[in-house]
Amino acid sequence: MTTAMSLYEKHAELLEKAVAALHTRDYFTPYPEHPKAYPAEDNEAGRNWFASSMNHEFTELDIDADNWVSEEVSPYFQTGIGVSYPQVDLDTLIANANTARSWKNVAVKERAALLMESLECVVKRYFDIAYATMHTTGQSFMMAFQASGPHANDRALEAIAMGYHEINRFPSEVNWVKPMGKFDLSLHKTWKAQPRGIGLVIGCSTFPTWNTVPGMYASLITGNPVIVKPHPKAVLPIAIVIAELRKVLKAHNIDPNVIQLAVDTTKDPVTKKLAEHKDVTLIDYTGGNAFGDYIESLDKITFTEKAGVNGVIIDSPKDIKSVAQNIAFSASLYSGQMCTAPQNVYVPEGGVETAEGHVSYDDVVAHIAKGVEGLVNHPKMGAGTLGGIQNDNTIKRISDGGSFGGDLVLDGQEISNPEFENARLFTPRVVATDYNNSSSFGEECFGPIIFIVKTKDRNHSLELAATMAATKGALTCLAYCTDEDMMSQIEETMNATFTPVSFNFGGAAFVNQHAAFSDFHVTGGNPAGNASFTNPEYVNKRFVWVGNRFAK
Amino acid sequence: MTTAMSLYEKHAELLEKAVAALHTRDYFTPYPEHPKAYPAEDNEAGRNWFASSMNHEFTELDIDADNWVSEEVSPYFQTGIGVSYPQVDLDTLIANANTARSWKNVAVKERAALLMESLECVVKRYFDIAYATMHTTGQSFMMAFQASGPHANDRALEAIAMGYHEINRFPSEVNWVKPMGKFDLSLHKTWKAQPRGIGLVIGCSTFPTWNTVPGMYASLITGNPVIVKPHPKAVLPIAIVIAELRKVLKAHNIDPNVIQLAVDTTKDPVTKKLAEHKDVTLIDYTGGNAFGDYIESLDKITFTEKAGVNGVIIDSPKDIKSVAQNIAFSASLYSGQMCTAPQNVYVPEGGVETAEGHVSYDDVVAHIAKGVEGLVNHPKMGAGTLGGIQNDNTIKRISDGGSFGGDLVLDGQEISNPEFENARLFTPRVVATDYNNSSSFGEECFGPIIFIVKTKDRNHSLELAATMAATKGALTCLAYCTDEDMMSQIEETMNATFTPVSFNFGGAAFVNQHAAFSDFHVTGGNPAGNASFTNPEYVNKRFVWVGNRFAK
Repeated sequence: MTTAMSLYEKHAELLEKAVAALHTRDYFTPYPEHPKAYPAEDNEAGRNWFASSMNHEFTELDIDADNWVSEEVSPYFQTGIGVSYPQVDLDTLIANANTARSWKNVAVKERAALLMESLECVVKRYFDIAYATMHTTGQSFMMAFQASGPHANDRALEAIAMGYHEINRFPSEVNWVKPMGKFDLSLHKTWKAQPRGIGLVIGCSTFPTWNTVPGMYASLITGNPVIVKPHPKAVLPIAIVIAELRKVLKAHNIDPNVIQLAVDTTKDPVTKKLAEHKDVTLIDYTGGNAFGDYIESLDKITFTEKAGVNGVIIDSPKDIKSVAQNIAFSASLYSGQMCTAPQNVYVPEGGVETAEGHVSYDDVVAHIAKGVEGLVNHPKMGAGTLGGIQNDNTIKRISDGGSFGGDLVLDGQEISNPEFENARLFTPRVVATDYNNSSSFGEECFGPIIFIVKTKDRNHSLELAATMAATKGALTCLAYCTDEDMMSQIEETMNATFTPVSFNFGGAAFVNQHAAFSDFHVTGGNPAGNASFTNPEYVNKRFVWVGNRFAK
Repeated sequence: MTTAMSLYEKHAELLEKAVAALHTRDYFTPYPEHPKAYPAEDNEAGRNWFASSMNHEFTELDIDADNWVSEEVSPYFQTGIGVSYPQVDLDTLIANANTARSWKNVAVKERAALLMESLECVVKRYFDIAYATMHTTGQSFMMAFQASGPHANDRALEAIAMGYHEINRFPSEVNWVKPMGKFDLSLHKTWKAQPRGIGLVIGCSTFPTWNTVPGMYASLITGNPVIVKPHPKAVLPIAIVIAELRKVLKAHNIDPNVIQLAVDTTKDPVTKKLAEHKDVTLIDYTGGNAFGDYIESLDKITFTEKAGVNGVIIDSPKDIKSVAQNIAFSASLYSGQMCTAPQNVYVPEGGVETAEGHVSYDDVVAHIAKGVEGLVNHPKMGAGTLGGIQNDNTIKRISDGGSFGGDLVLDGQEISNPEFENARLFTPRVVATDYNNSSSFGEECFGPIIFIVKTKDRNHSLELAATMAATKGALTCLAYCTDEDMMSQIEETMNATFTPVSFNFGGAAFVNQHAAFSDFHVTGGNPAGNASFTNPEYVNKRFVWVGNRFAK
């Protein structure tokens, strides 16, 4: 394993920095997020790579298969992209993973180095991954580049660093000497972090790498082989990541089946069969609540990110215009197809006090509608902020809801993207509704919609936001409040539902953004999910401390 | 909170040492384990305290109640000890605990100090607790003193130290600055360890403090109020600990209901009602598998220590006599009523090679039987090693089994304890049986019995021990092996079932003993339990990291 060991020397400094950053929680990334930080010709090369990959077999996994499946549709082209992936049958996947359990015998330093080497290879594929992400998820180019590239690499490195730190926090051996009075009792003791087994990581259709790599790298750094089962409509971005890791493993004489891609089709899904297989002990899942609840009900160790009903509390903002703009952007970004996007905006019927004076409820509603309208129709901002709609059903669900029993303040509209004439875009619908009408805002409504909920007063706003978080889950809460007592109350009440609060965000601060090494993503304490990127539990649950003792 | 803060100054040095010891895993204890380390008159005082407590109400909890319950029976007297405890109804317990959730607002430094102060008070009650433990569990005086006194305090301190360390490992606030090119994005971020809710700790009848304090102090240090529900036959030892903690809290103006004692009766148990109550979010449990499986099946965060079938592999020992003596002691200690006691001794039918030559299977059996016989009939060792049988059913279960379909090599016998004429003692029964007869040795048989299982060969011994551990659970495995290849194989195979192995124990080294700050107790990876004293998960699962962000 000398080659893997010299790899460790290469990555040791960054690894130590990453472990330190985990614990300072200050801004940290080794991966510049802006495409401009990379050679300009890479962008062109990535676009070309994607174009030439369309309607071809994806052979980079170096897998032979009888069956090749292909189901991805570009929200920008509204045609299939035609990339097909080798389908390996379930028994073979499990048998391969069992063979690859020898991965645990690779020292954790070397595992860390191999995994970090794969991230370095992924850097060279950022533009390929960006175009693959655009044309599967509908994200704008900028979001696709950042979320699937550097931000995903950040999250992957974070998981590697946390796993590495936790495995190294106890000594591998000690000579234990207990004074017994007339003599000493001496034992040689050793400890090892025994991996739990085989990890399954189930991806989602909207963030195919960002939501997949944390669980994937967390299981890998802790010594478990992993099978990734992406959403059949969003395979290519994570297939590239997996291919890069397989190449690194192979180059270092390690079984590439430490990481495997399991593809399936909407018609003939394989997820439940994999999840229920007795040899699968760890499951990471991102997706809807019904399937997530099923995953959690299995007698396995699970890490879920489901959905929530994220609230905005407008209590006592500085000025209403910048608030409306901030909310409009957060709700419009990728057309609300983010788990962190705000859905319900709670506004007291008596209006709110601002530094610029009283603003009536109706005026708050008007400002938000205007904010959305201005953004989505902005020739330079609109299409890029919205991105495309990943799934027809998302538009259908929102359109079919009509006014959801409230007032349709701003209708959603299909707008055009000058770059892609067939792109499927839909702007957020803004619905103003009474607090009694909870059948509308009381469930997660994924996609481009904002409910403005008229509440009795400020306390009622908080109560509603907290009840939603406690019963339906929430990943975020955005609060506009300049009254210190009320800020404390919002913080305490929302935190008691294990929901983080972002106060008075404006300018370039958006509630949707969770930065690796600083923001825990999902708390794991409410129905929005049972795990958190990346707290110590996120890696510790993936292995077991076993101590052996030797008489001397 | 100045008083609690000055308490922190008092305990800070030991707390830091304990945190360090967690991570060096070398021998560490601030609590001398031998009664002789304490003033001689304390022993007499403890004995008197116990005698005068009999047939009285236990008033130290400072609880008024209409109903006082009493069900403890001394295995040494075989009469009820008549101590009665105030029974608080379930609704009141929960309401009190909910009120006491303000405990989370006490800074973790101060929580640590208050909890450590209670351990210091417990030190002064060691002899009271020792006699209370003897006369509820049947443990010998020495074991009762050590296990319920200093060793329990070690485990409690370990949990406090781990909780304190984990809560302090992330900063409480940071000014986060992200360079955005033309400007910086600055956010003030804060993090808090939000406690999960109310902890319930369910005790067992044989180790009423040692098995209860880890979960109790782990939930407390992480900010959760706790309700302890002891076994109705073993209340007094933990009632003293709880009373001491309540006194410390009260003295520092903190709601004593942060810790409550919930007593019930065998006839009218309250455990399920408590466990299923919606406000109870954390459950610690020690006891049998059936109830433990039920606890794990609840939609709560659970920490279980159930039972296992612990194996001994006699492969290639140095000499068979010292092996037989070591096994005899480990199986006889407290009459096998320890979760760590060996039950099945696997011996190849072809016998074993020792440094002193070949020893036939029959001779191995004879040596073990002789070892047990010699120990239990030893006038100075016998009664003190065995202690008393906590529960009549334990003898009945073993006696009713007869030879369990094998050969009764050594019958169990009721022997006398010169100090207590009515004491209920029963020596281990030794049964030699074929590997086919797994209906005998294939289940946990709690209490004084050893099965010597005749296997096909050394590999078969290991296979059986591993299968038992994987399917029925195991807390320990004792192996006698001097062949390095086979040692590696035993280690790897047993560790793969998440079972720790103790190799070649002799002299004063016994497999039963798990030292705090060094040995993890239960791995949490096999059916013997899902938690481990005290790994990071053991405290981290009890709270949730919540981060708030503030625009500047």
